[in-house]
Amino acid sequence: MAYDIQDASLVEHYPLHTLSDFAARFLQALGATAEEAAIVSDGLMTASQWWHPGQGQGLEKLFRYHRRLQNGGIVPNAPMAWLKEGPAFALLDAAKGFGYVAAHRAMTRAIDLAGRSGIAMVGVCHSNHFGIAGYHALTAAKAGYIGWSSTNAAAEMAPWGSAKAVLGTNPWGIAIPRGEGHAIVLDMALTMSGKGMMRWYAREKRAMPENWALTPAGENTTDPMAAMQGPLLPIGDYKGYGLSLFTDALAGVMTGALFGLDVFQDDSNFDVGHMLIAIDPGAMLGAEAFSQRLEALLAQVKGAPPIDGARPVLLPGEVEFRRMQERSQSGIPVSRETVLELRRLAADIGISCAL
Amino acid sequence: MAYDIQDASLVEHYPLHTLSDFAARFLQALGATAEEAAIVSDGLMTASQWWHPGQGQGLEKLFRYHRRLQNGGIVPNAPMAWLKEGPAFALLDAAKGFGYVAAHRAMTRAIDLAGRSGIAMVGVCHSNHFGIAGYHALTAAKAGYIGWSSTNAAAEMAPWGSAKAVLGTNPWGIAIPRGEGHAIVLDMALTMSGKGMMRWYAREKRAMPENWALTPAGENTTDPMAAMQGPLLPIGDYKGYGLSLFTDALAGVMTGALFGLDVFQDDSNFDVGHMLIAIDPGAMLGAEAFSQRLEALLAQVKGAPPIDGARPVLLPGEVEFRRMQERSQSGIPVSRETVLELRRLAADIGISCAL
Repeated sequence: MAYDIQDASLVEHYPLHTLSDFAARFLQALGATAEEAAIVSDGLMTASQWWHPGQGQGLEKLFRYHRRLQNGGIVPNAPMAWLKEGPAFALLDAAKGFGYVAAHRAMTRAIDLAGRSGIAMVGVCHSNHFGIAGYHALTAAKAGYIGWSSTNAAAEMAPWGSAKAVLGTNPWGIAIPRGEGHAIVLDMALTMSGKGMMRWYAREKRAMPENWALTPAGENTTDPMAAMQGPLLPIGDYKGYGLSLFTDALAGVMTGALFGLDVFQDDSNFDVGHMLIAIDPGAMLGAEAFSQRLEALLAQVKGAPPIDGARPVLLPGEVEFRRMQERSQSGIPVSRETVLELRRLAADIGISCAL
Repeated sequence: MAYDIQDASLVEHYPLHTLSDFAARFLQALGATAEEAAIVSDGLMTASQWWHPGQGQGLEKLFRYHRRLQNGGIVPNAPMAWLKEGPAFALLDAAKGFGYVAAHRAMTRAIDLAGRSGIAMVGVCHSNHFGIAGYHALTAAKAGYIGWSSTNAAAEMAPWGSAKAVLGTNPWGIAIPRGEGHAIVLDMALTMSGKGMMRWYAREKRAMPENWALTPAGENTTDPMAAMQGPLLPIGDYKGYGLSLFTDALAGVMTGALFGLDVFQDDSNFDVGHMLIAIDPGAMLGAEAFSQRLEALLAQVKGAPPIDGARPVLLPGEVEFRRMQERSQSGIPVSRETVLELRRLAADIGISCAL
């Protein structure tokens, strides 16, 4: 990622279990069941271990959950229901519950179905923000399956040739299991970047790459402020636009969730849709042959000499895996601003805060 | 596409049936069965109707087929065999047959399986170049299914941070059926562009976009000649690299074909792998609800005002669909060079040539 770590004096470090325990108690105090709290907390911890606190996917998410659990946008212990099921698919009504929980249940079901069928897809409707896409793909990889996870999202990308946002960044997570070593995990939006990164460039008063976003009038710009109200640009120009449309067709249109301009608009009813696919990598040749052949391909990839000798070629997910290892020693960074706000909220809802 | 149409004096136009009939007879004279000739010819005609002759996917492909049918790289009437099958997957050994034929049979099987299971994947090993990815995805859409087709290909993309090509452009075709109107068809390589486009820029002595390819030393360049021996750049930087690796894991590693550096290297044994996935779009909500909801999304997309009033927002595949309609009136362009070479080859193999 292009982020520099923010000023060290503005960041505190905590052991994983301290944060994990706090997040789970926080959510339970707001009505989440123990199972829900454990799943959401695990997702937030994964984001905290993989990513920069400025990306807002770690403990910072608790602020939004707090607000939305109170305004009815997220329903704790939601009456989720399986609406339909076939040999290699299922449809889950998330009933406004936690997106992390709905997507986790959906991927778990997809894995189960793929174990019998080879591949399976599980759609989710009436859900919320499902967190980081790679987390749900990794759920499959941890079980020995290839995982593909996707969601629709608020309109921030314009159809190619327009400056009006109609489609979301519609992120994808892709994970491939490995017998030894960390799984391959690709976690990506279908846009070149996001508004969070643009805000960081704006704060740093730096020019952003010209292929990130347009002005509202559809002009190219390197000024993040000029593009803040404009659309994000897709990866690969018209290709990313097509991929985003495809994703909304699967995650939104197919499942019964909202889509396009309408999803993620009403804070008390986002009605997000997801699509989770699991594939048995050994279905055709057997698990062992797949594993050996995959390692041969990865050895070719890792054997490619780096352009810059100081920056070795990395596999997808390797940066995140290394950060996770480092942070198991050095602690997980949380911005001081977040710590102060969490202390305040903890006092409000009457739980202890070890932060 | 960024191509201009080449000098009109260098292009001849023919009705579809003339070209289609010629291609089929040409292939049959070289040993193809009537079924094989019909499938390959249909693929070549689709490319000829969608694309520019300079892209080399139309009748020009017959030169390569001619060479490879003679050197044993493509085996006509190949003894293709189903190696494995489960509720939602199958594996086809293409036995060095036509890639178009193997992928067509695989997608046809995937559609059949998806009709019962909701989603299905069919892998293909020991195959050849499968033509245009969108063609195979469209096979699914014509049957009312969402299609996703992919193949591995010769190493032309470097892992992110290296300049050594290890992975292919690994093209994807994605098609979504519509009740009325042309299907959505996205046909894309996972690189920003290809060597064919770079050669065109070189011939025209134009600077190419800087994000297309690197020099062999890993430097950015706008000089197509400086990058001709270097790697193509992926869409979305590291994202396209991850997508290409994922594609080879599915199409090559999982199926038993060659992969990475090894696929597409020996002209008499390319051993390409493909993966074809079909999805029943009505599995969850029913076909009619899917269709209505899709049209609502597409109306939002088409309703986005264009930046340039003269260039309306297009759906994926719309350019190609319009070209196909135009060419059904004006004829299909074939370069004069191709016509002359085909006449020579036709005389060689003893078939008549109406071109």
